[in-house]
Amino acid sequence: MSNESEVLETLRQIYDPELRRNIVDLGMVRNLQTNNGVVNFTLALTIPECPLRDQLVNEARTATAALPGVTEVNINLGAMNMAERRAAFGISSRLLPETNQVKQVITIMSGKGGVGKSLVTGLLAVGLKQAGYRAGILDADVTGPSIPRLFGVHGPVQIAPGNRLQPVTSRTGIKLMSVNFLLEDEGQAVIWRGPIVSQAIQQFWSDVNWGQLDYLLVDLPPGTSDAALTVMQSLPLDGIIMVTTPQALAAMVVRKAVKMAQSINVPILGVVENMAGFVAPDTGHHYDIFGPSHTQEIAEAAGASVLARLPLRPEVATLCDEGAVEAVTAPEVTPLVQELVRLASVSHTAVQQLTEMMAV
Amino acid sequence: MSNESEVLETLRQIYDPELRRNIVDLGMVRNLQTNNGVVNFTLALTIPECPLRDQLVNEARTATAALPGVTEVNINLGAMNMAERRAAFGISSRLLPETNQVKQVITIMSGKGGVGKSLVTGLLAVGLKQAGYRAGILDADVTGPSIPRLFGVHGPVQIAPGNRLQPVTSRTGIKLMSVNFLLEDEGQAVIWRGPIVSQAIQQFWSDVNWGQLDYLLVDLPPGTSDAALTVMQSLPLDGIIMVTTPQALAAMVVRKAVKMAQSINVPILGVVENMAGFVAPDTGHHYDIFGPSHTQEIAEAAGASVLARLPLRPEVATLCDEGAVEAVTAPEVTPLVQELVRLASVSHTAVQQLTEMMAV
Repeated sequence: MSNESEVLETLRQIYDPELRRNIVDLGMVRNLQTNNGVVNFTLALTIPECPLRDQLVNEARTATAALPGVTEVNINLGAMNMAERRAAFGISSRLLPETNQVKQVITIMSGKGGVGKSLVTGLLAVGLKQAGYRAGILDADVTGPSIPRLFGVHGPVQIAPGNRLQPVTSRTGIKLMSVNFLLEDEGQAVIWRGPIVSQAIQQFWSDVNWGQLDYLLVDLPPGTSDAALTVMQSLPLDGIIMVTTPQALAAMVVRKAVKMAQSINVPILGVVENMAGFVAPDTGHHYDIFGPSHTQEIAEAAGASVLARLPLRPEVATLCDEGAVEAVTAPEVTPLVQELVRLASVSHTAVQQLTEMMAV
Repeated sequence: MSNESEVLETLRQIYDPELRRNIVDLGMVRNLQTNNGVVNFTLALTIPECPLRDQLVNEARTATAALPGVTEVNINLGAMNMAERRAAFGISSRLLPETNQVKQVITIMSGKGGVGKSLVTGLLAVGLKQAGYRAGILDADVTGPSIPRLFGVHGPVQIAPGNRLQPVTSRTGIKLMSVNFLLEDEGQAVIWRGPIVSQAIQQFWSDVNWGQLDYLLVDLPPGTSDAALTVMQSLPLDGIIMVTTPQALAAMVVRKAVKMAQSINVPILGVVENMAGFVAPDTGHHYDIFGPSHTQEIAEAAGASVLARLPLRPEVATLCDEGAVEAVTAPEVTPLVQELVRLASVSHTAVQQLTEMMAV
């Protein structure tokens, strides 16, 4: 008759292929009970929609059922909360390698393409920097990176001690990492399937010499596939800024991103509406060029506030095309910066508590 | 000493994991010569940037080098042209299952998100339908589908004979297939990694009862990762329509998509500029709200013409939000429709020749 420690020993042979650690050490196996050949336990996944769910459950079931005396295996499915995910792999990533210390990791997401995620990311970094914080941007849009162009910076990256990549620093001192810094020609296509995209994003987190940062902003590509999954699963996110445009068509897709964030329990800190109408520079007339706004619906679905509405301004597009996002005047971004500063003071305390708790 | 037929027999053990056929039967092994233990051959990949390149080369080299008497293995890399790719797996997909007969497969691509690929796809299908052609749309944007909303149609799909999916038909008779037709709630997030996304797209081609179509338009998601690769590798494409907006920022990313299309030898039929300025409905003034246009540069890089420039019109956004893309008046699309009709008459002859050639 197998006892609980034998079952645990067996389950320790099963590895999460993405995290490359066994499911017992990852804290996924919970509430284990054995009774007269009946084995019950909960398998807590990193996220409920983990693509590896069926594989892990099958492997765990098969291995347990093969133990002598086991007649029945019942596996309940569970999911880690954010603190547990961090405990599994987040907190350690946040603190290691030791020279990197990133206090807040915020991702800018939309689900929909072309709504201005990169512009919002850039303006937010500029605003944080102006407010006296150390800011960096991890450009997770590997196949369509916009950050280098916005800041007018180019590669190649330098190699830092320990064979790590040195981020490129913008004119005002914002640290940037993007796949374009690694390409010989910036127009070159990056034709990679998902697993390689995921690996690149993870390396942009772990193999870059970020140093000391108050804020690392992660600019996500459109969609809810590999890049978003990887960022949500393996980066220690403090929250998400959701970007949308007024159109209902955009809202429908952004709602999917909201659902994804909610299912993974990453807090949505606020919603930003970009392309919020056009003010004619000559007449001052305001035009709803994308029709009436549906952003409030998104905010309600996200349980968050609309923190900024950015109108379309041709001079902003021109400055961005010239690589001068740091010269853009966008007072609408101020509430967003203030909210991040406020949240940081709250959540930083929470992170410290968690770190102390884990050190015990 | 191994001769050529022995080498071929060995190479026949190596399978392309995506096509699930061996590399000899796929026509990838060419110019095979053996001479005094030295084996030379060309490995023609489906596309030069095939993500499986290194794996296939290594497997081919290892297997060949292990043959008795072989002292040296030289593998040249090559790539199939479009006709060869079709011969490997395209033509058969075009004709099978027998009830599906699609004359032209055109993909609408951008690389960049939010430039209006779906709008262009929708307007093009409407224009082709109005010109008397049978049109369908395969919505390959699995994580951010816009086509159902544009046409105001909903699932669930019906199951057709042979367990195949019946496309949803729009008001004017355009056949549509989108992942949203398979979801219980259209706001639901599709959190899939790349391989599942690719599989879904392939099934939208092979397991849908498209019937007889003159044109199937494929609406691609942003990026040059899984979805674009799958469509370019496994659908019998006749060409690509590249969509961009005036901004240089967009142009840089669209250029990557152009590079991808060129490297895979899929012809770019033309370039469409969307959001080409805004005309104020009250004053008639034209505003370059996204700054000066960089579309001509894209067209030159693509070796194609700018076939249409679509200005921003609030009433178009509103109609699209209401699911009434079929009620949009967009005379700018006419040259695009005419070009597709002209090209079809040319390339259809080419396809027939190829089919006859292969039947010999």
